[in-house]
Amino acid sequence: MMNVLNHIAIAVPDMSTAIAHYRALGAEVSQPQDLPDHGVTVVFIQLQNTKIELLHPLGENSPIAGFLEKNPTGGLHHLCFEVEDLGAAIDTLSDVGARVLGNGQPKIGAHGKPVIFAHPKDFHGVLMEFEQA
Amino acid sequence: MMNVLNHIAIAVPDMSTAIAHYRALGAEVSQPQDLPDHGVTVVFIQLQNTKIELLHPLGENSPIAGFLEKNPTGGLHHLCFEVEDLGAAIDTLSDVGARVLGNGQPKIGAHGKPVIFAHPKDFHGVLMEFEQA
Repeated sequence: MMNVLNHIAIAVPDMSTAIAHYRALGAEVSQPQDLPDHGVTVVFIQLQNTKIELLHPLGENSPIAGFLEKNPTGGLHHLCFEVEDLGAAIDTLSDVGARVLGNGQPKIGAHGKPVIFAHPKDFHGVLMEFEQA
Repeated sequence: MMNVLNHIAIAVPDMSTAIAHYRALGAEVSQPQDLPDHGVTVVFIQLQNTKIELLHPLGENSPIAGFLEKNPTGGLHHLCFEVEDLGAAIDTLSDVGARVLGNGQPKIGAHGKPVIFAHPKDFHGVLMEFEQA
């Protein structure tokens, strides 16, 4: 079920400096894209085997504003895995006692596909996103 | 230069529970291996496109003991990228003002290859490991 890492999300307080630093390291970095429905500006770093998404808050009530208040220099925010059967993933998370955030049902994620998030306190401190492949 | 994500390292306070949870999600999880020279017990989770390393402190003065004190439920610890030229990576980090931990020179990492770590406060809150490919 959990086979492919879709992306690593990193919250950054200063997007332009982060872009410059990742580019200096030779990474392939996209232009910033505003996703107002998700309250973030996102930049994609394409690696050979996976990708990194740099996130910066957009607008009020951004879901990552609180994270940056606690981690003002930025930090690793979540991991996203592709799964073939999101319903089975919800059942498995329930079986191991991990809460699904929100109302427990999939929402449409930043890539336009159904996603869920498991509560980090129930999964070894890591915010895990599962995306329908 | 920065093209391949070698692994994501996650520190966990309870290795056996973490193993059980990742296996429940259908991940391919190795047996634990003790690496006394590095002060950790490690478990590898092989994904199709990269891998996760679960880390648990081993012995005294483990490099992840302090992290787990600050993050008792566990958490994302570092990212490791393969680079073709570790010396060039050191130069680039210096150019962008990111300190290399320790004496600034490569050490032999847990995979038997030369590695360096960049200071997370100098790189957007993420502890970045660079491994000679």
